[in-house]
Amino acid sequence: MPEPLFLRACWREEVERTPVWLMRQAGRYMRAYREMRRRHSFMELCKNPRLAAEITLQPVRAFGMDAAIIFSDILLIAEGMGVRLEYTRAGPRLEPLRTPEQVESLRVPDVSTQMPYLLEAIKLVKQKLGSTPLIGFAGAPFTLASYLIEGGTSRSFMQTKRLMFTSPGTFSELMRRLTDAVAELLNAQVEAGADALQVFDSWVGCLSPGDYERYVLPHMRELMSGIDARGEVPVIHFVNQAGGFLESVSRAGGDVIGVDWRVPIDIAWRRIGYGFGIQGNLDPMALFAPEHELELRVEEVLERAGARPGHIFNLGHGVHRATPERRVRLLVELVRRLSSRRAG
Amino acid sequence: MPEPLFLRACWREEVERTPVWLMRQAGRYMRAYREMRRRHSFMELCKNPRLAAEITLQPVRAFGMDAAIIFSDILLIAEGMGVRLEYTRAGPRLEPLRTPEQVESLRVPDVSTQMPYLLEAIKLVKQKLGSTPLIGFAGAPFTLASYLIEGGTSRSFMQTKRLMFTSPGTFSELMRRLTDAVAELLNAQVEAGADALQVFDSWVGCLSPGDYERYVLPHMRELMSGIDARGEVPVIHFVNQAGGFLESVSRAGGDVIGVDWRVPIDIAWRRIGYGFGIQGNLDPMALFAPEHELELRVEEVLERAGARPGHIFNLGHGVHRATPERRVRLLVELVRRLSSRRAG
Repeated sequence: MPEPLFLRACWREEVERTPVWLMRQAGRYMRAYREMRRRHSFMELCKNPRLAAEITLQPVRAFGMDAAIIFSDILLIAEGMGVRLEYTRAGPRLEPLRTPEQVESLRVPDVSTQMPYLLEAIKLVKQKLGSTPLIGFAGAPFTLASYLIEGGTSRSFMQTKRLMFTSPGTFSELMRRLTDAVAELLNAQVEAGADALQVFDSWVGCLSPGDYERYVLPHMRELMSGIDARGEVPVIHFVNQAGGFLESVSRAGGDVIGVDWRVPIDIAWRRIGYGFGIQGNLDPMALFAPEHELELRVEEVLERAGARPGHIFNLGHGVHRATPERRVRLLVELVRRLSSRRAG
Repeated sequence: MPEPLFLRACWREEVERTPVWLMRQAGRYMRAYREMRRRHSFMELCKNPRLAAEITLQPVRAFGMDAAIIFSDILLIAEGMGVRLEYTRAGPRLEPLRTPEQVESLRVPDVSTQMPYLLEAIKLVKQKLGSTPLIGFAGAPFTLASYLIEGGTSRSFMQTKRLMFTSPGTFSELMRRLTDAVAELLNAQVEAGADALQVFDSWVGCLSPGDYERYVLPHMRELMSGIDARGEVPVIHFVNQAGGFLESVSRAGGDVIGVDWRVPIDIAWRRIGYGFGIQGNLDPMALFAPEHELELRVEEVLERAGARPGHIFNLGHGVHRATPERRVRLLVELVRRLSSRRAG
């Protein structure tokens, strides 16, 4: 049996068509998910292996995605590290963490005892998934640090940058602990059966190129070299709004770099170098466009990515919750059809 | 008397040091402003020429900025076009506008009768400003369109993109009317005495490069060619988070392109071409850093901008309201000192 399309593309091997999966492909835009959500909180869904596995499989069954991604959340690791976490209507809330003492109190979690539900869910998914690969994931240290410091989401990242600028030692210690914790989490997911990994640096785009190099890059390199299965299991390094410093991002490592829609994918690929695969980068809002407009944009991404092996089609960010399911179906069909034509 | 430093830099003439002003330099971070704000609503301050003039002058007197920018708001033009506008604690609120009929109902305002307070404020400032140049400004058509369509600020710009994708004719008509209105507004400010203009395309960075070219670029070119005083009064074209398509932005025009901190200013300048001046691009959060960290970052921006004439120092976005005034003072001193040393 040949290796699955998605994995071959991650390794930049020849493929007969471009593989496609979508960030946040399991979630609120699906009716099946909303029905489960009516009876369970988000946290319950994440922590119930049977339900999490079921949700993971929903989009694969419904739309034939080329990869599954385990249903979970990047912030659950915070709990494992000893931080109180809740999900509210306004978004996630965490106990804000700003002092050296609070940072010292963070422990690197033992994933098998502190997040057993996640590993169990991965095992359940693998039993039912057939040949489709399963992606395990984690938030990148900076993105997690920003949630911990701000106590939730932010627009200006003021507290994060304040800590970074005024207490670089504390910030760095926080990044070190998060790096260890994230490596642990990624390794545990591979051991449980994940076929690929994605690291989400969703908020790193708030930084200037210089600050990325100073405060983030060394930790990202550390993280990448802490992944035991590197070279065996592909690692996708997703960055959002980091179009200004993609060269530095690629120096941080990963096998595939994921980019958002604000940068042309051909230019992004040239900048990171063809020693990496590239993932992306349709605007999630294009799923609200009429058919022919969606087709135009899918074609545009495929055209720019070109015939070189190593492109994985995705959105530039997660599927928006209001997205019509039929548009997701159409998108997957379009990528299959238009990229086969090219390959042929 | 030689032409002021700021204007010479806009025209890319030799200067003895780098001029500096800050977006949102008049506003909530200043105690003098907050005292006035306690007695008047934001709208009242904008619409009272004497108070608006006073606020405009505050940072120039306090910190010796190389340019003043008239105290006003980009959304006031919406009122002039017939849209209800209010400023709430949660931000600006507008009557959301989404149908062809609503777009047809927008009128191009006669600025002298509908926004007389603005022109009056400009005249008052000019009487007291001495040789310091005064910048007039407007929101760019896309940024204004997004506020009108969303009814306020947005994270996903879903309604804006939806209208753009599904009703391109309506969207384009809206952009046309806004373009005419903005040209009118800019021209009226020059007639009243403004020495330079800035167009703020603060939200255009939500678009993909392709969508910018399709839906925005033609209107921006139209706008630039609709400025009567072009070639006499420099036009700064500020874009936020548009690092992915700066080449297109420069094709839209302007004498100076303003960029945010997410892109290295030297690379931005090379990409737009040296036929433009460049403005920016310190992270506004750097003003929360200790002195030596702030100095490092100012030095970094000056170093990257280099010795070529045409750099105007600014933040990459507006001053944050929590910024300490003493840090703004220090920033201005640092730019003066460090850039004189370079020029010398």
